[in-house]
Formats: sequence, structure tokens, C-alpha cells
Amino acid sequence: MIEDKNPQRTSLSDLGEFGLIKHLTKNFEINQSSTLKGIGDDAAVLDFKDKKAVISTDLLIEGVHFDLAYMPLKHLGYKSVVVNVSDIYAMNAKPTQITVSVAVSNRFPLEALEELFDGITLAAKEYNVDVIGGDTTSSQKGLIISITAIGEADEAELTYRNGAKSNDLLVVTGDLGAAYMGLQVLEREKQVFQVNPNNQPDLDAYTYIIERQLKPEARKDIRTLLHALEIKPTSMIDISDGLSSEIIHLCKQSGIGCNLYEEKLPLDPQLISVCEEFNIDSTTVAINGGEDYELLFTISMNDFDKIKGNPNFTVIGHMVEESDGIHLITRANTKIPLKARGWNALDN
Amino acid sequence: MIEDKNPQRTSLSDLGEFGLIKHLTKNFEINQSSTLKGIGDDAAVLDFKDKKAVISTDLLIEGVHFDLAYMPLKHLGYKSVVVNVSDIYAMNAKPTQITVSVAVSNRFPLEALEELFDGITLAAKEYNVDVIGGDTTSSQKGLIISITAIGEADEAELTYRNGAKSNDLLVVTGDLGAAYMGLQVLEREKQVFQVNPNNQPDLDAYTYIIERQLKPEARKDIRTLLHALEIKPTSMIDISDGLSSEIIHLCKQSGIGCNLYEEKLPLDPQLISVCEEFNIDSTTVAINGGEDYELLFTISMNDFDKIKGNPNFTVIGHMVEESDGIHLITRANTKIPLKARGWNALDN
Repeated sequence: MIEDKNPQRTSLSDLGEFGLIKHLTKNFEINQSSTLKGIGDDAAVLDFKDKKAVISTDLLIEGVHFDLAYMPLKHLGYKSVVVNVSDIYAMNAKPTQITVSVAVSNRFPLEALEELFDGITLAAKEYNVDVIGGDTTSSQKGLIISITAIGEADEAELTYRNGAKSNDLLVVTGDLGAAYMGLQVLEREKQVFQVNPNNQPDLDAYTYIIERQLKPEARKDIRTLLHALEIKPTSMIDISDGLSSEIIHLCKQSGIGCNLYEEKLPLDPQLISVCEEFNIDSTTVAINGGEDYELLFTISMNDFDKIKGNPNFTVIGHMVEESDGIHLITRANTKIPLKARGWNALDN
Repeated sequence: MIEDKNPQRTSLSDLGEFGLIKHLTKNFEINQSSTLKGIGDDAAVLDFKDKKAVISTDLLIEGVHFDLAYMPLKHLGYKSVVVNVSDIYAMNAKPTQITVSVAVSNRFPLEALEELFDGITLAAKEYNVDVIGGDTTSSQKGLIISITAIGEADEAELTYRNGAKSNDLLVVTGDLGAAYMGLQVLEREKQVFQVNPNNQPDLDAYTYIIERQLKPEARKDIRTLLHALEIKPTSMIDISDGLSSEIIHLCKQSGIGCNLYEEKLPLDPQLISVCEEFNIDSTTVAINGGEDYELLFTISMNDFDKIKGNPNFTVIGHMVEESDGIHLITRANTKIPLKARGWNALDN
């Protein structure tokens, strides 16, 4: 697929490591006042003044986290940034900088890396983060991307996983499960393509869920919105591994339990119809499908009126005592223990 | 080699990703006052108060940056931290935290990862850095390590690559080229082993240079020493790619030239004798061999008396006007242009 798109191929070793870094990073701008020195020295220099710094890192491996058969490199670059800044938003902080390290095998021409960095540059603009460093090297096999995201926040606004209290409401942004079903559609089309490469897929019925998989966005709006509504969540996490897995994290770290209501789960109509087509239970998908990059948080019951009716938020449950456990309350009103069956990179 | 050392093998997927992270990170202590929150949330939280934060990142790939045939995993873990904190020292800053991401193929048992993390833990203690985050995942092939190092410094003490002035003295710590020749010895022993696995290598004559390759140390003492001597370097860099490559970085970024004197290059006696044995020119090794992790810096001529006779420092050259170029002055007093032939990860 890469070859088709890049009739011109420039070998990476022609440029050398320093030439390559210079070439790929030339479009990066410095916009954050906290960035004193970006790329070009042994280390970047940052000044957070009276703010706290938050930092998070993720490693993305070809064949484990993404498949270049259906993931365009530009989208991959964009998504690599999104998954990292999402962790910063999950602290109720503002992302400010990222470092980007990339390892590629020799099969990648320069033009492929340029596409990847185009996506990284686009996401850096969209989320207003400075690219302040990184590393470019060769790999034995495939493409490896390591991104570290840095952000800032006032101490009072930082939101951890361990602050949820019994009786708090469990709230989620956006809708759930679409990224996972988007992946199922793309996997199916890949198999069709392998059988008949002339087959042109008609993906019109799947645009939303495929976009959720290929070009997810982090919820940068929520921090501003919560601030405007004068809500400080008692705990917060982003949904990368799947709703059930994230709920269990909040409960375990806060020392409480949770009742999650099946009927409250926010599902996009396209997700529901694709689940029917694939004969998969949409609740299972919403609970265990990962990569939604929505925010999951708890708020005090007293704040309910502030979010009531707001289309950005859905109350999907409430927190209970630890001894009451973590349960899904089904539409039929049966109570079943919630298990983390989320995506596990180590099973691959 | 891994198999021989680990009769007990525990599969990584038995533990799951979160179980694995918990298991591997249980020995990490928080010692830095700037670490408000370490591992266990979406992001770590740091507070640098009135200090500036510095940040640097490196990606280490099996088969490109290391060979497990002769690199024990514990040493690899240690060295991975060293190469990163070395970048922080090269800013004249103090390393305070690191994040560690690791991807492994399924051939690695838990016991192998434990050895790797033992080395990381040891280095974290030695350099007094808190391990505040990371990621553990599977790879398609081999071991991949991504480390981000964070440090702090007062703005006035930060030392960049671009501050060198004409007439400044060029100073290096320790000695040069030993890590490179240590690698050559290990490569030779690997080939001997492949021909005759019963051959027991006698490495007594190579202990110093092998240790420089397998267990390098970053120069954490230099910052304190320079402070005590009341010297602020005008520019500084660490030697990872090779002396010539680093000199060229300092010159290009400072807009000046340099005369480097062959006769001044600090060489360990063991290095000289091994170079003779291998029939390699020791000057070439000292100039182009990488991974010394010594510090290279420039100081004002006025500071010469402060370092004169100090065994930690060797004056190896002086800076000249940009138009005079960057040259090696040989023992025979000929002047040859210095070229960066340092190790290039993209040639692999």
C-alpha cells in the first residue's frame, strides 16, 4: 500500500540520522510559552512556573497496535498524538509539549515517514502542543512510535483516579464502542481485499465508526466545559482499553464499587446497526471495545443539575460501597459482575 | 543465553498487562520532592517550582542498538537509563525522573523482563531518579526500550550547545574510545562462540573496555565538580555518537570552528594495547567510536587555571573562527578536516 502511494522513493540512509531529523522536524513550531528550548540540544527545556507538570508516555508497535494495511500513515501519526494527549486531558490538565521517537525498518522510504510526520504535525497544531524532541532510528521489523506527552495544570484542578466516592455519579463523554466496530469493518475489508484485490469496498454505511478508529479525537473541549460549569470531577480516566477496564481502575483506586446501567450506555445509531450486521451484542462492544478516547469521570450528586441535559455528557451509573462490588445492571434488571475483558496488548 | 540463565519461565500473558506493570514496578521508590504522583494514573504529576525542567528521550532497539548475545539484560536495563540521564547531565542539569516503556516478543519470559527491570532499578538508585511511568506491551520482534529522562536546573546553570566562543578551550572528561573497542572484543568473542560453543573466552585483558561497553556510567560527578570550581561551561554535549560528531554539533550550533589536537586525546592504556592487537588506529577509535558517555564542553580561557592538572578533565583543543573550519591537528602537525564518521543508527 505504501509503495502504491509513493512512486518517488528516497532511501533513509541517504539523509543520515541528523539530516533526517532536521528534515522531518522542520515544520514544527514553538507556540507554548512554557517551551524555552525545543529540538536541537541534548534535552528540551521547559518552564512551568507555578503550574504542575504532568507527563505520560505510550509505545505503538506495528502489528500489535496498528495495521498499515488499512491505517494510512498520516492518520497513524495523528492518532499517535491523540492517544497521548488524551492521557493529559484525563488528568484535567492542558497538553503543552510532546516528544516523538520513531523507529522504522529499511522498507520505509522517506516519503512514508513524511506522511507520518504530516499527521503528527497536524495533530500538534490541533491540540496546540510543541514537538520538543525525539529520536529517529532503524528497527529490525516494522514501525515503532514512542510518544511522551507533557501538560500543565494548577494543582487544584488536577483530577486523579482515586478520588471517587460512594454515591458519586459516573459520567461518560460522547459515545462508546464505535472505534472497536470500525476496526471490525476494516479487518473484514482487508480479508475481502486479500481474496479479491479488485474489489472496491463501499464503506458509506460505516463512515462514522471507521473515522472513530482511524482518526479519533481527544476530548480537549471537556476541560473548558467542566470549568465553565464549575464542576471538578472527583476522579477521571480516559477510555483507551475499554469502559469496563477503566471503571474497574477508578473503583480499585478509589476503594469503592459501582453500578453501571446497560440502558444508559450512549451508542451511536451507526454502531447499533453495524453490531446487528455483525451479529455482535452492542452492550458487549460498548463495555469492552477500546480506543474510544472519551473521558470517564465521577462527580458529586450535587453537581447533577449542572450537567443534566448536556449533550456532551451521559450519566451511566453511580458509585457504591466497595463491599457492594462492581456490577452491570442489565435492561432486564439483572445484576452481573463487571469484568475487564478490554483489549490487552500482551495477548497479541 | 536467556534460556540458560532462566530455568523457570513464566509466560507474560499469564500476568496480563496491568499485572505485569504492577509486578515489574513494585520496587520503584519515589525519592524526588518534585514527584507529586508516580506510576498508577493517566499521567505522572511533577512540580519543579522555580526550576526549569529538561527532558530528553531515546529509543533502544534490539539488533540495532544492542545484541543480547553478549549484553546481559540487567546491564542493558542499567545502560538504557545511563544513556538517557547522560543527556540531562549534558545540559548541566540534575536528572530527577524517568519513564520506561518496554515492548517484548513472546519469546521473553517474565524472568527476563525482571532482570531488565533489576538493571533499571539499580540505575534509578545510582542516579537518584524516580521511575514515574511507562508502558509495557508486546512487539512483533525483539526487545524495544523507550526511556524519557526528566531533570531540573536553575535557568542560570543550564548549558546549551550553542554558547561556545572563539578562543574557548575544548575540554573532555574521562577517556575516549574504550566503549567502541569493548564492542569489537565482544563481537569477536561472539564469532568464536558461534564456531566453537565450548570455547571459554579469557577476557581478563579487556575488563576495562568491556565494562565501558556493557556498564557505562554517566558523569553525574561533573556538575558538582564544575559548580565547586565555579566554572560554567559556555557549551556542553555528551559523547554518544563519537567525539568528532559532537564537536561538529557544538561548532555548527555555536557558529565557530575548532582545532582538535591528536596528541591531547585521553586514551586508556588498555585501549591502546587492544587497538594494537586489532591493528586499528587508536586516534580513529577515540574520534569516531561512540558510547563513551563522557561530557564534552567548552570553557573560557580565563577558567583554564581552575581545571589545570585536574585528572577529571583534559583540554583537547580550542575553538577558532567559523571561517577557520573544524580540524584535527595530527602529531605530525598536519591539519586535516574533521568529519563526522560516528555511529549512525540508520545505516544498520
